[in-house]
Amino acid sequence: MAHIDFKNDFPGIRGPMAFRPDTAKALNNLAEILLRSDNSLTRGERELIATYVSSLNDCFYCQNAHGGLAQYYLECDMQFVDSVKVNPEQVALSPKLKSLLSIAASVQRGGKNVSTAQIEAARALGASDMEIHDTVLIAAAFCMFNRYVDGLGTWAPTDRQFYVNRAPQRAVEGYADYDPSH
Amino acid sequence: MAHIDFKNDFPGIRGPMAFRPDTAKALNNLAEILLRSDNSLTRGERELIATYVSSLNDCFYCQNAHGGLAQYYLECDMQFVDSVKVNPEQVALSPKLKSLLSIAASVQRGGKNVSTAQIEAARALGASDMEIHDTVLIAAAFCMFNRYVDGLGTWAPTDRQFYVNRAPQRAVEGYADYDPSH
Repeated sequence: MAHIDFKNDFPGIRGPMAFRPDTAKALNNLAEILLRSDNSLTRGERELIATYVSSLNDCFYCQNAHGGLAQYYLECDMQFVDSVKVNPEQVALSPKLKSLLSIAASVQRGGKNVSTAQIEAARALGASDMEIHDTVLIAAAFCMFNRYVDGLGTWAPTDRQFYVNRAPQRAVEGYADYDPSH
Repeated sequence: MAHIDFKNDFPGIRGPMAFRPDTAKALNNLAEILLRSDNSLTRGERELIATYVSSLNDCFYCQNAHGGLAQYYLECDMQFVDSVKVNPEQVALSPKLKSLLSIAASVQRGGKNVSTAQIEAARALGASDMEIHDTVLIAAAFCMFNRYVDGLGTWAPTDRQFYVNRAPQRAVEGYADYDPSH
C-alpha cells in the first residue's frame, strides 16, 4: 500500500500524478522535452538511458514502463533491454551510446562522479555538447522520477508484459498531455 | 571548467539553463510549483528541505543558493541553516518539520529507504498527505537539480555571502520566469 492516500489506485507514478495534477503537469512537460521532442538522440536511445538509470536505482515501475517504450522504439525485445541493464558495454549498441550510458551511470551515483575522461571519450565518439547535456539531465531526472515513485511506496504490476502491451499507446500519446488515469 | 561549452560563464545551474532554455523552462516551472506556490508548508520550510537535500548530495551551489533563500524567508542566519545540515534533530525546528526532513534524507539515499514508521511519525506530528507528497517530490527534485549542476561540472562562487546577497532579489523574482543571465 502506498505511504499516502492518493484517492486512486493507479500504479506507479500515475498514482501521485493523479493526486497532484499541478506537479504532474510540470513533470510531464520535462519528460516530453527530454524524451520525445526533436533531438539528435532518437526516442529509443533516450528511453534506453532512462531505463538504464531506473534499473540502477532499482525502480521496478520506471525501468519497465520506459523499458517497454525503449523496446518499442528500438524494435527489439525486452531481453535486449535487460542485457543493457546488466552491462551496456557487452551489447550491440553504438560506441557513442555506450559512452553516454557510462556518463548516465556516473550521474546516477552522484554528479561529481562524471569525469573529464568520460566526457572526452564521448566527444571523441561523436557526442555533441547538447547530447552530453541531455544525457546528464535525463539521468538526473530519472534519479528524481525513481525516488518519487518509490519514496511514496507506489505499487506496480508485476507482469512485465503489462508494460510492453502499453508501450505502443504510450508512444502515441506522449508525455505532455498525459492523463494518468489512462 | 564545465564539462561542456555553455557559451556563457554563469555559475551553477544558470550555465546549463542559459544553454538549453527549453529544459530550463520546464525545470523552473517545477521549482515554482514546489517551492513558491501556495502551500501549507511555508516557502522557508520548503527551501530548507531543498537546502538539506542539496547538502546531503554535497552540491555547493544548490545548498548555498537555496540556503540563502531559506535564511531570507525564515529570517535566520546562515549559521542556523548550517546547523540544520549537520543535524536537524538538534535544531529549534517544529517536530513536524523535523519528521519531514527525516523523510527527505531517506529519499536522498533512495526512494525505498522511506519507511512506514517515518510516514506514521510525520502524520502523528500533523503532516498532511499533501505535505508528505511535496516533501518527497522536493527531495527527489533536488536529487535531480544537484546531479544536473555537478554532473556537468559547473563552477560556483566560493564566497557564501554571494548567495545571501542575491536571496532577496531571487525571492521577489521567483522561478517561473527566471532569466538565468541575471
